[in-house]
Amino acid sequence: MSKLLDKIQFPEDLRNLKVNQLPVLAQELREFIINIVASKEGHLGASLGVIELTIALHYCYNTPKDNLVWDVGHQAYPHKILTGRKAVFETNRQFNGISGFPKRGESNYDAFGTGHSSTSISAVLGMALAAQIKNENETQNIAVIGDASIASGMAFEALNHAGVTDANFTVILNDNAIGIDPSVGALKNYLTKAKKGIFNRQPNIIEALNFNYFGPIDGHNIEALIQNLEALKKVKGPKLLHIITTKGKGLKQAEANQIKYHAPGKFDALTGELLPKTNIKQPPKYQEVLGETLVELASENEKIVTLTPAMPTGSGLNELMQKFPKRTFDVGIAEQHAVTLAAGMATQGLVPFCVIYSTFLQRAYDQIIHDVALQKLPVIFCIDRAGLVGQDGATHHGVFDLAYLRCIPNLIIAAPADEIEFRNLLYSTSLGLKQPIAIRYPRGRGRHLNWKKPLEKIDIGTARQLAKGEQLAVLSVGKMTEQVRLTLAELNTDDVAHYDMRFVKPLDLKMLTSVFENYTQIITIEDGVVQGGFGSAILEKAQKQQYKGTIDMLGVPDQFIDHGTTEELYELCGLSVDGITKSIQSKLR
Amino acid sequence: MSKLLDKIQFPEDLRNLKVNQLPVLAQELREFIINIVASKEGHLGASLGVIELTIALHYCYNTPKDNLVWDVGHQAYPHKILTGRKAVFETNRQFNGISGFPKRGESNYDAFGTGHSSTSISAVLGMALAAQIKNENETQNIAVIGDASIASGMAFEALNHAGVTDANFTVILNDNAIGIDPSVGALKNYLTKAKKGIFNRQPNIIEALNFNYFGPIDGHNIEALIQNLEALKKVKGPKLLHIITTKGKGLKQAEANQIKYHAPGKFDALTGELLPKTNIKQPPKYQEVLGETLVELASENEKIVTLTPAMPTGSGLNELMQKFPKRTFDVGIAEQHAVTLAAGMATQGLVPFCVIYSTFLQRAYDQIIHDVALQKLPVIFCIDRAGLVGQDGATHHGVFDLAYLRCIPNLIIAAPADEIEFRNLLYSTSLGLKQPIAIRYPRGRGRHLNWKKPLEKIDIGTARQLAKGEQLAVLSVGKMTEQVRLTLAELNTDDVAHYDMRFVKPLDLKMLTSVFENYTQIITIEDGVVQGGFGSAILEKAQKQQYKGTIDMLGVPDQFIDHGTTEELYELCGLSVDGITKSIQSKLR
Repeated sequence: MSKLLDKIQFPEDLRNLKVNQLPVLAQELREFIINIVASKEGHLGASLGVIELTIALHYCYNTPKDNLVWDVGHQAYPHKILTGRKAVFETNRQFNGISGFPKRGESNYDAFGTGHSSTSISAVLGMALAAQIKNENETQNIAVIGDASIASGMAFEALNHAGVTDANFTVILNDNAIGIDPSVGALKNYLTKAKKGIFNRQPNIIEALNFNYFGPIDGHNIEALIQNLEALKKVKGPKLLHIITTKGKGLKQAEANQIKYHAPGKFDALTGELLPKTNIKQPPKYQEVLGETLVELASENEKIVTLTPAMPTGSGLNELMQKFPKRTFDVGIAEQHAVTLAAGMATQGLVPFCVIYSTFLQRAYDQIIHDVALQKLPVIFCIDRAGLVGQDGATHHGVFDLAYLRCIPNLIIAAPADEIEFRNLLYSTSLGLKQPIAIRYPRGRGRHLNWKKPLEKIDIGTARQLAKGEQLAVLSVGKMTEQVRLTLAELNTDDVAHYDMRFVKPLDLKMLTSVFENYTQIITIEDGVVQGGFGSAILEKAQKQQYKGTIDMLGVPDQFIDHGTTEELYELCGLSVDGITKSIQSKLR
Repeated sequence: MSKLLDKIQFPEDLRNLKVNQLPVLAQELREFIINIVASKEGHLGASLGVIELTIALHYCYNTPKDNLVWDVGHQAYPHKILTGRKAVFETNRQFNGISGFPKRGESNYDAFGTGHSSTSISAVLGMALAAQIKNENETQNIAVIGDASIASGMAFEALNHAGVTDANFTVILNDNAIGIDPSVGALKNYLTKAKKGIFNRQPNIIEALNFNYFGPIDGHNIEALIQNLEALKKVKGPKLLHIITTKGKGLKQAEANQIKYHAPGKFDALTGELLPKTNIKQPPKYQEVLGETLVELASENEKIVTLTPAMPTGSGLNELMQKFPKRTFDVGIAEQHAVTLAAGMATQGLVPFCVIYSTFLQRAYDQIIHDVALQKLPVIFCIDRAGLVGQDGATHHGVFDLAYLRCIPNLIIAAPADEIEFRNLLYSTSLGLKQPIAIRYPRGRGRHLNWKKPLEKIDIGTARQLAKGEQLAVLSVGKMTEQVRLTLAELNTDDVAHYDMRFVKPLDLKMLTSVFENYTQIITIEDGVVQGGFGSAILEKAQKQQYKGTIDMLGVPDQFIDHGTTEELYELCGLSVDGITKSIQSKLR
């Protein structure tokens, strides 16, 4: 029997179905996603939770004329499949394939690109106000946002503004009590009570902000969704529909273990069981090194506290949270608050480790400058997922941090070459600093099976020479140090000197002066943007010291880099072993 | 008769008074502030509104052991005067004098430095959690925050987190319905209803976030304040006291015209009348050029919209708001939302001018990258108060923007030399771009009386040569172009070529290549941080083009710059005419 899904390329096909056919379609769509993600990997739980909602939205609204924005976008797989991308869906997150997130360039059904949380209400309000200005009063504008995302400051700012406009738009609050980790915060507790009917009326926190509130309703009941959406279309002004869904809906294991099945890797599509991981012992993930090292350090030092904005699992903090629940803080999707909270703690003599992904730290830029660096408070920023992160793509690469942090006075910036250097830096900073430090480290694994060596202190601003050579000096930081090491091993040359600079700020001036004196050719390499980054810092010092040789700067070029494996993206940017080899060989006589 | 205020140096002196003496002290303190600000200038209205609160807080709490944090800090003058700084208060905001904002380095009564809004709840929660960890349960922690600031996203994040802790701390919501301009937004409307007693119970939006709510009470009634504060001390967990005050309280004109008397300039201390401004016609303020030019452009182009996060007056948008109320948006203290709202509007073909002070744009860094530049949406950022801003000091200098924006792909960055170039840039961008642009311009006035010339289009990425010379090329952007012009006029030399680069990105490569070919000495100059800024961009190109001469980079050094007049700060940074003269002369044969 041919499937309903086979006949559907675009929402207009969907709209030809009868309402009672839609649950069947939902089941087919769910299976389609499970089958592909099981082998191709990707985000799973969020999409399974909004199958019915996605169908109902495209059934009721006139997309793409009506604007539909998916907050964060982890949950947009059913949307992509129903809007012309079913045939290419198996290229999801692959190099040159479709993006794992909504993307304007990919489809006119993707009204606004997402990836970072809590942007959708602002974007959709902008669209709704534009419609007013252009007298296009028939256009519908819809934002779908989760309960973890709506609790972030930016979403509140949008609600607060929206409530005093008469813009026609709809917020769908997709309440499943979880983001990537379980939602936290007072608003979440409040919504939970609302769901349980503890209040005998609607949650007036939304109404207090002058929204029309509808719900809560079952977000897996397509008929109820359609009824409510049709009713909402006729309501003027800002309105919110509160729906209750289950993350991972329809796959038993995904419902039962929502954190693991957020992005489960490969699994058995029929049973849902995760495929066994390789038994070969692998080097640790950087977040494991962070978590385990902080457990060691916090056991010795009662002043150590750790903060994360909604990423305890991804940041490797679960053991820390269990062992030191009073000293480990998940503040929700609230990077701004996390940083200034850490600053407040630092004023009282605590030693705060503030763990944030590089791309999300962009959300707290002002707080780093104004609340931490200006006051010289010794907050330790642990910047995870720095550099090119692979399949999450352009919205998630942590490639700007060296440039945007380097211009901030008082801030030390370190980029360890491997997990042992990382671990030693964590230890060194925990001994006490008189100013803040940022330690940036990559996504993925280190290179040592036996990484838990005795802790050693690294002095701030010291580099180390890894290879000697006559013709050329290569200066690297962070993960690129390993890339250079691999390259030189393959090249098997003794013409190339290699320095692991370790600190972007302060630079090791003694080491650098000797490099300027002894070489006429320098290559700098970093897994961040070239403009204003590490190489640029070397240039500034070179100019000051009247260095007359050449400096070639390798790094991420001045463009947004799409998704792909890290290796593919390194290749693209000239940061692969091949790329570095070419750069080096072009310099050797 | 000797005054009460004469006997008070520190809060411990204050605590020796009887409660019925405090209103007298309040009156003396009010007069003291009015007298000094009348002649020395500074922020007035906010401080007059919290005289009674300040006295009550220091009377009830054991400062500095108890931590007291003033959000934004405009209102901290009475606090400074009662905490050891009465004798030096007349040096307020002067070079080497005390800061206009709370500052940790200045006094241990300033528990946390402020300047940007909405940080206080995070900071104080950090202190309260630290007290818990250290088992110092007797310490009180208090944040004072206004109704405009509490509506900002960051404050919401802090409230949302605080509500699920059992930290002992107090938020004083100082509700006067105004920030610098009148407060806006749904929360403000809600609080207004609460004040009027329209609800028959407390505003449960606060209680919904799990805070104990007290008030509203009259914030000018010292006795009531003391009673409430003493009662609050005994309440565990997060709690909020809602007080109603009047900005400018006690000075008739300041109460009547709260916007003007936020920072009124010189006035008659007895009558309150503003001193007459000079009759000499002056060049326009940059914000006036912005406002008037946007009125012209918006009259012609219905797609032009303008957005400000809570700074309509300071940004020069009042006429625009009156003439185009549907196309001019004050979104409240919500920089993140403002930027993504503009992005949403741009997707619908509108031409959004997003006007934000340089220092506050730091709050929206992620949104610029993720929502605007990545999607190549043609938002026009008008970055006011760029460069050194003078007396507002370290928290307010707009010196990082060139560095933090330069690393963002797709973003054009312009820095006009004067108000005519600024006006022409506004015009040129309004004609339609396919990508975003940032136009950064300084605080203060331009240099032309007759600035409203016919509009001329400036091509993106074009520089212009202002002076010819043989020995040395000076490359400048923005306000520094005028500094160089003045310097060269004084030097009366024909050895120095001068280029107004106008665009930091893209650089005029044709012009630059000719500079590299024709000069062996280059000086770059910018009123921003040197590290990663404009000069650094020139260095990068020079290295690429194998330029072998020298490049000296003038700009703000790698340290936070305190307050003073702009001229004093230029002197400090080597950017005064004298400083530039020295740099140039050291190069000339």
